[in-house]
Amino acid sequence: MNTAILLISCPDRKGITAAVTNFIYQHNGNIEHADQHIDGQANIFFMRIEWSLKDFTLAKSEITNSFSHLARKFRMNYTLYFSQDTSRMSIFVSKATHCLYDLLLKFKEKQLPCQIPLIISNHTDARRIAADFRIKFFLSPKNRKNKLSAEKKELQILAKEKIGFIALARYGQIFSRQFVKTYYNRMINIHHSFLPAFIGFNPYQQAYSRGVKIIGATSHYVTENLDAGPIIEQDIVRISHRDSLNDLKFKGQDLERTVLSRAVRWHLEHKILVYGNKTVVFD
Amino acid sequence: MNTAILLISCPDRKGITAAVTNFIYQHNGNIEHADQHIDGQANIFFMRIEWSLKDFTLAKSEITNSFSHLARKFRMNYTLYFSQDTSRMSIFVSKATHCLYDLLLKFKEKQLPCQIPLIISNHTDARRIAADFRIKFFLSPKNRKNKLSAEKKELQILAKEKIGFIALARYGQIFSRQFVKTYYNRMINIHHSFLPAFIGFNPYQQAYSRGVKIIGATSHYVTENLDAGPIIEQDIVRISHRDSLNDLKFKGQDLERTVLSRAVRWHLEHKILVYGNKTVVFD
Amino acid sequence: MNTAILLISCPDRKGITAAVTNFIYQHNGNIEHADQHIDGQANIFFMRIEWSLKDFTLAKSEITNSFSHLARKFRMNYTLYFSQDTSRMSIFVSKATHCLYDLLLKFKEKQLPCQIPLIISNHTDARRIAADFRIKFFLSPKNRKNKLSAEKKELQILAKEKIGFIALARYGQIFSRQFVKTYYNRMINIHHSFLPAFIGFNPYQQAYSRGVKIIGATSHYVTENLDAGPIIEQDIVRISHRDSLNDLKFKGQDLERTVLSRAVRWHLEHKILVYGNKTVVFD
Amino acid sequence: MNTAILLISCPDRKGITAAVTNFIYQHNGNIEHADQHIDGQANIFFMRIEWSLKDFTLAKSEITNSFSHLARKFRMNYTLYFSQDTSRMSIFVSKATHCLYDLLLKFKEKQLPCQIPLIISNHTDARRIAADFRIKFFLSPKNRKNKLSAEKKELQILAKEKIGFIALARYGQIFSRQFVKTYYNRMINIHHSFLPAFIGFNPYQQAYSRGVKIIGATSHYVTENLDAGPIIEQDIVRISHRDSLNDLKFKGQDLERTVLSRAVRWHLEHKILVYGNKTVVFD
Repeated sequence: MNTAILLISCPDRKGITAAVTNFIYQHNGNIEHADQHIDGQANIFFMRIEWSLKDFTLAKSEITNSFSHLARKFRMNYTLYFSQDTSRMSIFVSKATHCLYDLLLKFKEKQLPCQIPLIISNHTDARRIAADFRIKFFLSPKNRKNKLSAEKKELQILAKEKIGFIALARYGQIFSRQFVKTYYNRMINIHHSFLPAFIGFNPYQQAYSRGVKIIGATSHYVTENLDAGPIIEQDIVRISHRDSLNDLKFKGQDLERTVLSRAVRWHLEHKILVYGNKTVVFD
Repeated sequence: MNTAILLISCPDRKGITAAVTNFIYQHNGNIEHADQHIDGQANIFFMRIEWSLKDFTLAKSEITNSFSHLARKFRMNYTLYFSQDTSRMSIFVSKATHCLYDLLLKFKEKQLPCQIPLIISNHTDARRIAADFRIKFFLSPKNRKNKLSAEKKELQILAKEKIGFIALARYGQIFSRQFVKTYYNRMINIHHSFLPAFIGFNPYQQAYSRGVKIIGATSHYVTENLDAGPIIEQDIVRISHRDSLNDLKFKGQDLERTVLSRAVRWHLEHKILVYGNKTVVFD
Repeated sequence: MNTAILLISCPDRKGITAAVTNFIYQHNGNIEHADQHIDGQANIFFMRIEWSLKDFTLAKSEITNSFSHLARKFRMNYTLYFSQDTSRMSIFVSKATHCLYDLLLKFKEKQLPCQIPLIISNHTDARRIAADFRIKFFLSPKNRKNKLSAEKKELQILAKEKIGFIALARYGQIFSRQFVKTYYNRMINIHHSFLPAFIGFNPYQQAYSRGVKIIGATSHYVTENLDAGPIIEQDIVRISHRDSLNDLKFKGQDLERTVLSRAVRWHLEHKILVYGNKTVVFD
Repeated sequence: MNTAILLISCPDRKGITAAVTNFIYQHNGNIEHADQHIDGQANIFFMRIEWSLKDFTLAKSEITNSFSHLARKFRMNYTLYFSQDTSRMSIFVSKATHCLYDLLLKFKEKQLPCQIPLIISNHTDARRIAADFRIKFFLSPKNRKNKLSAEKKELQILAKEKIGFIALARYGQIFSRQFVKTYYNRMINIHHSFLPAFIGFNPYQQAYSRGVKIIGATSHYVTENLDAGPIIEQDIVRISHRDSLNDLKFKGQDLERTVLSRAVRWHLEHKILVYGNKTVVFD
């Protein structure tokens, strides 16, 4: 596969789809996937279009320039991706390693189109796993006092490794506003509740205390407000009075992995558009 | 079927189950269902036991007296029900009638063991439905000023009709503390979100604005705090960016009916035990 | 709303989307929804496109003629619909009426864009319901001997009432090949299992005997092979050893309604494309 | 925790529960969990009862003898387990390793009460994983000709390692009748469909071809008939026309792990009773 992908959003008006698809057709591109959505309330047009570069008459380096006329005309926000430019992902993890393992295994089975050169943790639990998978491990212990200096070193090594995307695989630390800004819409967290319920610390305990009959997990982009970023995916599992707090954790782990890995995969396939505090997921 | 049902809760200690089952066995009762649960954290024992009155050597009127010795010994809270004493249920409804219809249809198909002599509404929409099903309809319009006096009349007609249980089938009014107290643990509401998320007004709009990927419904006993009572049942359905606010309502309606009717059925079958703000549902 | 809808399928090749969207743009149409899908294995292109007729420069009667050049060029199968031409639906039902009620109630709440002039049944149970909703009721008892003659009369009244679409709302009779052919891809059935499991008679009994832990429902277009037509929608609910056969029916009823009404709504909104034995549902 | 567990089934009659709970009470046992079920159609009584051995006045070795009088009286099938006798489990695996990894990780996190001394495979893919987790790996390649002799060696090493329970974690080989008999009701398989649909080879391809809208996974005890043994657990995930065959596998993997590990955990906790071709799962 050798394709180009455009993610577009702009004010809705007549002729956008015709213009974009003509652009591809005129340069002899074959559309592999096209999906669009119009938010009628907000009057915004969204599009994801992917076409084969085989026989395409523009070189990769010429596409942006050639497309810019169209983009200006329709006042588009757009990003161009190439399927062969695989993203470089770093995984942050604390003590619980089930989500980390899941991403590594899916990566190994070629279900996540990326490279994973770096794992960062505030604990040592994941060190041996990183070694097993031959991935660099960076230990970055954190407390209230050293948080900003620790983040500074993290950003340095992330930059050095050219990391474009971060998955927080049950990472227990909250980032500073500055860090979040650097990876805005490029950092996905898994929260172990169906947000917006049970924000913050120990959501399984909160769920157990409230006596709910379902528990959930939510993957979302990280913003400066805790557990309040754009939601990408959610799922739930039923529980009953027979389930202890430990049972909730057992059942929840499977959810967390699934909900995080779906979101990571969609992000890496450039299938997510963020607007306001929402996502359009062209699955 | 002619059975007796005991719902029991008490501090956990040795010998409770043996004592209760011996009591039934000694009087020649055949146990049809028995379910128990121990909350290990709170050290509370819960039991639901149902036995056939065929061949039982105690008359219905003698059971409580005969059981009281045991109950005192183990410091039990308990309630005794007879399957042949069908509950008298009233349904409160406002403008949306899908939950009302669902309860009436399930009643008609003999899936809800109760009588339904009375429907109360603050609007006229359900009047004709009540007539179709030959049920008394009481119109009780409400506003801030007349609320307490309207409730007073409602309580009068409820008492007159000997109503033991109330289902709020998308009823849009909040009850006074006094009313709630009268039907404590005997009034079930359906809220159209997965509580504790989206408490209060217009939860579908809240869900749409937050950009969640699932919507839910929750049935719970009504307490004096809005949407905060013991949860009986919850369920969800997936949504996507393609779903408009109206689609959420369309999908949600099916959930609301299902989640409410399950709770109502369990209540009428005496399968729910409430403790603290939680429920044990012996389904 | 005043829109036109095109459902298109054709061999995949370059330029289809550009050609279709240009056609609409050139005649000043505003695209409201566009969705496309390519089956890469079968090399088939599918599209659903809906545009506003406000300001559209072609009259309704001119569209087909004007579009035919394009359609020939790309060897399209296509159908043109107008949102203002509401379908005329007939509902077939036997003794169980929960699906019938559900469709009628959703219709009454304007969630199904159609007219419902006719209910046909081989039993009298639904007669009063039809009267309540002021819909014509046609009693058509069937047995092995009179089947073809009964169907003949049914086809006559369906033709007289200009019925374009049939929903089988738990209808217990199997149609002849001739009848199926007349309403090919225009007749939706609800089967109370997750097909292809438990085809045929009494699927709840089959599920109970097999000891499954989930039960399901499936809506599908009717073909000449029993329960083997293109699947439109499926859903399931969990069960356990605690559920009796009657509990399966109780839980299953809610599924059946939901799974049937979703399919009916999608069909009426022209969101379903059939190819081979599969469906593309542009929800 | 130091508990005894009794799994009992017998013809239903008066006094069983009283007799069993009296037996425990008379010897000063404290019941931790008790669950019972009556299959009214088959007239069979099922019970799982777990009590603390702290303060219990019978030694472990005396319990069976002391209980046998009761067991004879009620014609019970029963098995006695002790929570401190951890099961020895072997995992069979072929090329796909996601279920193997999942069991090993849950084991490592102390969520599976067992030892895992042995992994057996007909391929070499899992060899390194076994080494990482310090578990003995036995390579047992199989073809039509050597099947019985290969099984013979497998049974020898299983016996030598005192394996009491086998999990088939996506193991691609079918066992002989003799092998199945040896581990009757002690061998759990994961099949990647919602049985009884899509029995046998390549169920994802079957599901893709049939055009279903959900895919599933089923864990079951292995019997001599392929994919026809007593079902323990099932779950599903929604798919659409957008999902390729590879997407089905991606989504299905998460299901397979979850559905297998739940069944394995229940088995190891002695929560499953098999009768006929069904299971009672006292979760």
